[in-house]
Amino acid sequence: MYALRTLSRRTTTNSARLITSRFHPVLSLPSRPFSASASNMGRFDGVEPSAPTVKTEIPGPKAKEQIADLDKVFDTRAINMLTDYNASIGNYIADPDGNVLLDVYAQIASIPVGYNNPHLIEAMKSDQVVNSLVNRPALGNFPSNDWADILRSGLLKVAPKGLDQVFTAMAGSDANETAYKAAFMWKRQQQRGGHHVEFTEEELTSSMNNKSPGAASELSIMSFRTAFHGRLFGSLSTTRSKPIHKLDIPAFDWPQATFPLLKYPLEEHVEENRKAEQDSLAEVEHLIQTWHLPPCAVIVEPIQSEGGDNHASPEFFRGLREVTKKHGVLMIVDEVQTGVGATGKFWAHDHWDLPSPPDMVTFSKKAQTAGYYYGNPELRPNKPYRQFNTWMGDPARAILFRAIVEEIEKNDLVSQTARVGDYLYGKLAALAEKYPGQFDNLRGKGQGTFIAFDNPKRDEFVKKAKSFGVNIGGSGASAVRLRPMLTFEEKHADILVEALEKIVQSL
Amino acid sequence: MYALRTLSRRTTTNSARLITSRFHPVLSLPSRPFSASASNMGRFDGVEPSAPTVKTEIPGPKAKEQIADLDKVFDTRAINMLTDYNASIGNYIADPDGNVLLDVYAQIASIPVGYNNPHLIEAMKSDQVVNSLVNRPALGNFPSNDWADILRSGLLKVAPKGLDQVFTAMAGSDANETAYKAAFMWKRQQQRGGHHVEFTEEELTSSMNNKSPGAASELSIMSFRTAFHGRLFGSLSTTRSKPIHKLDIPAFDWPQATFPLLKYPLEEHVEENRKAEQDSLAEVEHLIQTWHLPPCAVIVEPIQSEGGDNHASPEFFRGLREVTKKHGVLMIVDEVQTGVGATGKFWAHDHWDLPSPPDMVTFSKKAQTAGYYYGNPELRPNKPYRQFNTWMGDPARAILFRAIVEEIEKNDLVSQTARVGDYLYGKLAALAEKYPGQFDNLRGKGQGTFIAFDNPKRDEFVKKAKSFGVNIGGSGASAVRLRPMLTFEEKHADILVEALEKIVQSL
Repeated sequence: MYALRTLSRRTTTNSARLITSRFHPVLSLPSRPFSASASNMGRFDGVEPSAPTVKTEIPGPKAKEQIADLDKVFDTRAINMLTDYNASIGNYIADPDGNVLLDVYAQIASIPVGYNNPHLIEAMKSDQVVNSLVNRPALGNFPSNDWADILRSGLLKVAPKGLDQVFTAMAGSDANETAYKAAFMWKRQQQRGGHHVEFTEEELTSSMNNKSPGAASELSIMSFRTAFHGRLFGSLSTTRSKPIHKLDIPAFDWPQATFPLLKYPLEEHVEENRKAEQDSLAEVEHLIQTWHLPPCAVIVEPIQSEGGDNHASPEFFRGLREVTKKHGVLMIVDEVQTGVGATGKFWAHDHWDLPSPPDMVTFSKKAQTAGYYYGNPELRPNKPYRQFNTWMGDPARAILFRAIVEEIEKNDLVSQTARVGDYLYGKLAALAEKYPGQFDNLRGKGQGTFIAFDNPKRDEFVKKAKSFGVNIGGSGASAVRLRPMLTFEEKHADILVEALEKIVQSL
Repeated sequence: MYALRTLSRRTTTNSARLITSRFHPVLSLPSRPFSASASNMGRFDGVEPSAPTVKTEIPGPKAKEQIADLDKVFDTRAINMLTDYNASIGNYIADPDGNVLLDVYAQIASIPVGYNNPHLIEAMKSDQVVNSLVNRPALGNFPSNDWADILRSGLLKVAPKGLDQVFTAMAGSDANETAYKAAFMWKRQQQRGGHHVEFTEEELTSSMNNKSPGAASELSIMSFRTAFHGRLFGSLSTTRSKPIHKLDIPAFDWPQATFPLLKYPLEEHVEENRKAEQDSLAEVEHLIQTWHLPPCAVIVEPIQSEGGDNHASPEFFRGLREVTKKHGVLMIVDEVQTGVGATGKFWAHDHWDLPSPPDMVTFSKKAQTAGYYYGNPELRPNKPYRQFNTWMGDPARAILFRAIVEEIEKNDLVSQTARVGDYLYGKLAALAEKYPGQFDNLRGKGQGTFIAFDNPKRDEFVKKAKSFGVNIGGSGASAVRLRPMLTFEEKHADILVEALEKIVQSL
């Protein structure tokens, strides 16, 4: 019943309608996966389908009805696909109409090790998790007596080199904003003359009126053009992805430097790209020295993800580390989308060989919990309650991250992602050659499965993908971004590549 | 073994050391509560202790050791009490040294229906919750096909009157900030001439540079002095609780009006208090008309909680609704701390008899999930992806809130809280009379158990409470705030009042 792939490979029609029927007979998925497979097989062998099933248009009749109902109480205009998570399994996402798609978008890059992963299910059924859900602690005031162990056996086990402490948060936006707060407090402390210098009366009073010197409104956080760092007021001030993200929201007058816009293929544009990166670093330094609100930190994504999968070289990031060090500015690496294995290393900045670690690294998405790592004790503010809120993170999700780490280690999924990424990149390079202009600026070589390309009809491309059995996302103005889970294997890459070819044939 | 209360009532010593031994013999708590009690008994009768146990100083030797260990990786300077959540039950919080305290702080007012509540445990063990934890959806793009039902059977079942839609969030800060974003977009849409007017090229371009007219930096959110609305950059700009919350963080130059400072007892200061409220409303109107960045919304807590339990009358809030309506300014009611039953009504603003509902009501804490309710369809921005983020809430916690609502309804806990609150207030009024100057400005009459008073040695008071078997919190400069759970009964009030008396005797 699952042996559909060979059949589907022989099918060459590019009609979505025919393709739809091609994927019959209907797969009936178990509502819960059964136990793990043998060690030489993929995690979901035997439990996930061997090919997608497309039975209806998406959304189909059932989904349409349910979306209309949901819309009465919850804005549904951004719906991509109403999802049946009981029927979703491994690398496949299902909907209420029985469509089952290979998912290389993975909840905006946030599902790490497959839908209904058995090890995660087991972890979430544990008494420890149930306890942490029903007795949610105010972590700053009343941490549980197992909190240190939860941190050490999970979050800190995979902490970036040189960063041995963590401040936990809820999602990418507040992870970044609390990192910004730490940066402002650190810089003002330096300006004041150290940890032990007390606040002045004027600072205490003016802070309550949102004025300087109490509020450090004369300082800033620098980010890069086309960056994405979140959508609350502080993080949105550093986000420069698209107007629709920013319109009508007040923002701080913080500086942005140009992110180097590399030309592809890289090997044909070595000198131009080097110059673009040098120019960017020069602009960073210039802004540090001249912006009317001096930056206390620069935040950067290893690969600008929402902004269109924009890469830069390890040399660029080493240069950024150098220029920030030189001027006493913190370097915050936003690994919200790149972290947890997708680039073929656990943290994307592991590719850089930095001479000294970033000051803070923020995480969320595939970690299923959020926060920032740091190492320098000076980044703990000089008094308690300065970096504080009621929940300060989520122990249940910290335990989930621990289970994710266990699953990654047990199955060596970071290495697998590096290997499968190389395989996929090779296939895509061949496609790009076969279909000129359809897989433009193919990028992400050596970056695991964190691969993207541009297509002139991107929106249509992404929409049409569903009828060919693939759930896929876009980013920036024209990029198709591949963001599969760490459980993505060569066999999935084959299905994906075949679907991509059919999509471009149909455009 | 649990019949210690009668004994303890006879004890009149004010020595913390003797009190400590008084609470022996040691209670041995079940690590998980067994099933619910008969309907005419409290939820935790027979499973929670009948009195606190204080065996050591707090923190005791085990806690001290564990805190020192935790501090290596996680800032512990704000620790109030390292907690053993397996041994905590009902209204009692336990620590690793075997101390078990009556908890009237409840994780900064966020535990709704008792530690290890059996109904919540059952709900969190359900397949639906496990599924929503391991397959966390990106709710805006890929909501689950049971999301509408989860909302209707939980969050929306208790929606404030007139507000039938919800935007879900993660915690109080982002609940408020997303409400602010909705307010800014609504106001700019009005200024532009309606939903269907497209953005200008200048708006699109300037928004990317954090400049007007694209960024609505010429607008503001008004809040009140001594308010607390969160600690991220937008919410912190409206928070005016204490310098330690605000120092060194850049803030928007938004206006604050004076919150009426009522004098107690209310019946002796009727005219003064009415004038204070009228002055406050006049200031609100003046700021709306004159502040250089005109407010598009006013946010207000029904009772300013972190700021010191500052109350105002229903007339004041009706006046605020009137003045905001008059000037086309939204009224956002922040029910993060007051919501979900603690004031003896499900929402504190149910006490006000408003002529028209607030425009938005934000919630978190006891709801164990967060977000804002709204009714006016104009508060949905004119395009998708304007109010959006990856997770956009947390279905597992929305299901938890549903279970909380079920538990509240089944046991009529809002009515119980109103009744127990009246009982407790009466006892405290008697104490206040007996100990002049120790229970100053007793407030919260008719507001359930949401009661507070001022004490001249507040910090010592709160610290000492633990040695008398009670975990209790402060707020503002001098307030002791009582924030018990909805499972708090008359018998708990008796224990609390007895301990309070011993505390003041020992100060």
